[in-house]
Amino acid sequence: MSLVVVGSVAYDGVETPHGKVDRMLGGAATYISLAASYFTPVKIVAVVGGDFAAEDTELLVSRNIDLEGLERVPDGRTFFWAGVYSADMNDRYTLATELNVFAAFNPQLPAAYRSANYLMLGNIQPALQKNVRAQMDGVQFVGGDTMNYWINDFRGELLETLKEWDFLLINDSEARLLSGETNIRRAAAAIQAMGPQALVIKRGEYGAILFQGERHFIAPGYLLERVFDPTGAGDSFAGGFIGYLAGQEAQRNRGEIDFAELRRAVIHGSVMGSFCCEKFGVDRFRTLTHAEVDARYAEFQECASF
Amino acid sequence: MSLVVVGSVAYDGVETPHGKVDRMLGGAATYISLAASYFTPVKIVAVVGGDFAAEDTELLVSRNIDLEGLERVPDGRTFFWAGVYSADMNDRYTLATELNVFAAFNPQLPAAYRSANYLMLGNIQPALQKNVRAQMDGVQFVGGDTMNYWINDFRGELLETLKEWDFLLINDSEARLLSGETNIRRAAAAIQAMGPQALVIKRGEYGAILFQGERHFIAPGYLLERVFDPTGAGDSFAGGFIGYLAGQEAQRNRGEIDFAELRRAVIHGSVMGSFCCEKFGVDRFRTLTHAEVDARYAEFQECASF
Repeated sequence: MSLVVVGSVAYDGVETPHGKVDRMLGGAATYISLAASYFTPVKIVAVVGGDFAAEDTELLVSRNIDLEGLERVPDGRTFFWAGVYSADMNDRYTLATELNVFAAFNPQLPAAYRSANYLMLGNIQPALQKNVRAQMDGVQFVGGDTMNYWINDFRGELLETLKEWDFLLINDSEARLLSGETNIRRAAAAIQAMGPQALVIKRGEYGAILFQGERHFIAPGYLLERVFDPTGAGDSFAGGFIGYLAGQEAQRNRGEIDFAELRRAVIHGSVMGSFCCEKFGVDRFRTLTHAEVDARYAEFQECASF
Repeated sequence: MSLVVVGSVAYDGVETPHGKVDRMLGGAATYISLAASYFTPVKIVAVVGGDFAAEDTELLVSRNIDLEGLERVPDGRTFFWAGVYSADMNDRYTLATELNVFAAFNPQLPAAYRSANYLMLGNIQPALQKNVRAQMDGVQFVGGDTMNYWINDFRGELLETLKEWDFLLINDSEARLLSGETNIRRAAAAIQAMGPQALVIKRGEYGAILFQGERHFIAPGYLLERVFDPTGAGDSFAGGFIGYLAGQEAQRNRGEIDFAELRRAVIHGSVMGSFCCEKFGVDRFRTLTHAEVDARYAEFQECASF
């Protein structure tokens, strides 16, 4: 039931209508790992610089995240990103991107990681994602995220990578770009034909749609009364999704992930994404309890059933 | 269980990426009545000109819609609207608005209409909506629609009208405009305080949210493979919603509409809105059967449950 998470660990500077933080822990692999850690043991693969703070290491360790695969470059600096959100927080503008040690990131898995059954590849260069996949012969359920830049400029590599994926998490505009279809249902069919049998199309505040084979499931977005900071919400969604599936392995019949379980995984993704927005950066995960996660899952059931 | 529907009966000229029709039956009261007619007897209140075609009268009659309240002005012309949709059909541009006989519309209810229990007020001047409400002393469930123009320029009249409504159907941008709140949950609370205890906030392709008291229900939007023409989808939603509630009266315990019933009404609204988009104008209602309506309701259950 162990999960390997690959991606960025970073520092972020974020400004929203509710406040401004110059430098805080961030990065896709950070959010994915923290969210997934509520459901399953997590092994992280990432790179940081000599500036990576002891307190941030401690947060990850406190969530039982295995850091053997966290490479440290003492004379380098950690990836830094800064951005500002629009008044309604539906748009954000990048103010700074300093790749630093992340520019040369070439993920190598520790031996102890290679037998894990679940692999979640955060948004990095598609050829690197493929290379990680190749290091895990026995992996049972593998997939990840991508973005417009790779879809536009690394399309061939991305298509080679997707062939070997069981799932893809992507937002609606990326799904349209990748498929060339405007209609979301036909976009999904085109993407499934590229490889991933399970496809989750994220729709921001409107929730997400899960496709598997001919079936689909429409998951609602949680109606927060106040979004403090949407940074990391998509990655927290991914962490809840894959973490839940990894954590359910022991309960599963003959290793098959069925559609009902995928539905519950998507709702757990929405649960973790919604918590992420309640405080700045990763702060909500410092106090979040499993009882709160279960209570919000029940809230989702209450507000979506008829 | 009889329902009175008040609003426009019109001719529309519509262009979408799938085709162009210069003149076809349209208008809010037309779509509301046609959709509601699948669930309950409907009595329409509207005005048309001498150009109103016999075949359009016949379509309404074929759906058992009572036309006693359809005023005819032989030397006038029927309200005409023309518009063109953007490539993704999320935006539309008005090319022509000719109010014609609709400009002097002052709805007067026939005596036989005044004892109906349900009243749905399409998007017309708020003082006229209030005036219709006053003609129905015994009405049990009344509400309707409005739009940006009335919210901005007739706010005082609109607020007086809303005080007497049990429900309001409105889209998300209108809800934000009416309430002054960006967050949809706080917008809903502010609008409920204006009068309507049941509030449905429509979100286009993303579905709708129902609020009643402290509770809410998030309804998915149906994933059509091809939207031919979204004209009338919102009004068809309204017709399915109020028509279903009116039709359930005999089954209801002591006249109380509970939250579970409102949820089912919202899904029936979504069902009728989704059918409306499958053909141009009202064409889908020419062939739609009750069995198809029930099958799509079951599809909604399948794609939203977890």
